[in-house]
Amino acid sequence: MKISDLGEFGLIDRIRGMLPDQTPDVIVGIGDDVAVLRGNGDTVWLVTCDVQVEGSHFLLGAVSPRDLGHKALAINLSDIAGTGGSPRFALISLGLPKDLPVGFIDALYTGLRAEAEASGTAIVGGNISGSKLGFFIDIFLMGEAPEQEVLLRSGARPGDKILVTGSLGDAAAAVAMHLDPTLGTRDDYRRLAFQRFNRPTPRLKEGRLIAKTRNAAAMLDISDGLAGDLDHLCERSGVGARVHADRLPVLPENRILSQEKHGNEWHFSIFGGEDYELLFTAPLDTAETLARTIAAETGTPVSIIGEILPLSEGRQLVLPDGRVVPLEQKAWDHLRS
Amino acid sequence: MKISDLGEFGLIDRIRGMLPDQTPDVIVGIGDDVAVLRGNGDTVWLVTCDVQVEGSHFLLGAVSPRDLGHKALAINLSDIAGTGGSPRFALISLGLPKDLPVGFIDALYTGLRAEAEASGTAIVGGNISGSKLGFFIDIFLMGEAPEQEVLLRSGARPGDKILVTGSLGDAAAAVAMHLDPTLGTRDDYRRLAFQRFNRPTPRLKEGRLIAKTRNAAAMLDISDGLAGDLDHLCERSGVGARVHADRLPVLPENRILSQEKHGNEWHFSIFGGEDYELLFTAPLDTAETLARTIAAETGTPVSIIGEILPLSEGRQLVLPDGRVVPLEQKAWDHLRS
Repeated sequence: MKISDLGEFGLIDRIRGMLPDQTPDVIVGIGDDVAVLRGNGDTVWLVTCDVQVEGSHFLLGAVSPRDLGHKALAINLSDIAGTGGSPRFALISLGLPKDLPVGFIDALYTGLRAEAEASGTAIVGGNISGSKLGFFIDIFLMGEAPEQEVLLRSGARPGDKILVTGSLGDAAAAVAMHLDPTLGTRDDYRRLAFQRFNRPTPRLKEGRLIAKTRNAAAMLDISDGLAGDLDHLCERSGVGARVHADRLPVLPENRILSQEKHGNEWHFSIFGGEDYELLFTAPLDTAETLARTIAAETGTPVSIIGEILPLSEGRQLVLPDGRVVPLEQKAWDHLRS
Repeated sequence: MKISDLGEFGLIDRIRGMLPDQTPDVIVGIGDDVAVLRGNGDTVWLVTCDVQVEGSHFLLGAVSPRDLGHKALAINLSDIAGTGGSPRFALISLGLPKDLPVGFIDALYTGLRAEAEASGTAIVGGNISGSKLGFFIDIFLMGEAPEQEVLLRSGARPGDKILVTGSLGDAAAAVAMHLDPTLGTRDDYRRLAFQRFNRPTPRLKEGRLIAKTRNAAAMLDISDGLAGDLDHLCERSGVGARVHADRLPVLPENRILSQEKHGNEWHFSIFGGEDYELLFTAPLDTAETLARTIAAETGTPVSIIGEILPLSEGRQLVLPDGRVVPLEQKAWDHLRS
């Protein structure tokens, strides 16, 4: 059996099965984006890593090394944001072909540094390795949070409202426009979409604030697409969910492009990956106030897009005409795709 | 300019120069194998990462995936051992070609798990990524130690004795035998040398004990070869050093192979990499007792191989006939070699 038969998530399950049960100081271990580790006092450590591999995640010619630096760190920061934590320390592991120009590294670190400074992260080390295979960058990020404030994907309960920050589907639209040059849109939206794809903004301030209110029940960042990450949340919480297509925060130009490419207005926003927005749930009685508070204090829109259902109800998508269809998972699988 | 012109250590210096000054909670940052971070209370966190890349560090056909799992974790554990710390948590980042057999991952994790359990390390997460480039494994390891007991490479002072654990040069002999099948030795030494190369034993117990005595001044693990890592220690401590070739802990068969291959008995032990022994210094008045204590309590031999000199004396190698020659650095450079 090849690993592509098993898929990314099958492989993760298999690995978890091979390892011993986790000790009490591991609050969340294998299987989530972020491990939660008991530190001293009532602080917990949040640790995560994410790799960007030439040819799999990006093409060296198609992305600037500076954007690559921004993005490689931003996607890890977004994982920490998804727990409500604050980033602290990063290690940068590089696999480098020998003929790589030094200017590439300079530009890469210009991006890394900007992202680190903006987020209060100290880059404290790493590893440099020659790579005959091509370039890759792997980042290890440690964050922290008060234990009582950490939000996990396992906390959602039936009746909770489902909320998201920002807008969805823009990165997916950028990828679609990159792959299909006949797809046209307004110049300003095109720029915005590519900006969102190349330099995603981790929602750290929003995540920290959501966690501090202690009014949310579950949270994670959307990297695999709304459907995929909602699937992770539902599975870990043992619940179902209903999402209303007409409540999704989608820019008008994105709806048009999605309609043109996929025959419906919500494809990019539901199935597109790399949004790096936050997906969270909150009990019915606090959700609206929470959404207003976060939007007012951060300037980032927060939308209520659906509600958590009992597990038996499955995952449902309510179309604008009122029809209810199954919400397919279609999570991004790094091994199958 | 290509990065191969700059070299690994030149590139690290350049990266350090691009980043902001480090904050007070970063006790040791970029440039060492391990970053030392202030935690809560008087505990510090020790974080490190190390990658093994197909084609650069190993050939998939030449090493068993189980040994690869052992070694990938062992080399990180060795970094923690080199500071006197205890390993706690590991994240495993994998770059996987799609057609890799699942049995490869099973065997890899069998090795990882054995090494984790033997060292008291919890594997708490990681990242799985497709890789069109070939296989790689990158491990992030967090360890900890009481702040007062952390040993850095910067603590050596003139007059200190230089000590090493175990024996040197065996991994280099294995590589030489692998590359040159005409090099013969006794079967039992051949097995030992390949065992040392494929499944190095991180000197965690020894490192922790050395740190706990508070009698050592500086320490690191030997991964780049004795000359290379002594060079790192001297540079960071601002000192010189003298090593006596006839005091090096080298097995007789290793001396014979080194003589046959390089025309002298100490080439493998001084310039060979991947020993994963500990190199440390201790003041004159405590060094002998320290060596005896560690050897008695762990069963691992400890040898006094030289002494720290003022910086102006440079780095010297005393040959068995009494001649003193410069100790060339020849550190393993992952970008140049």
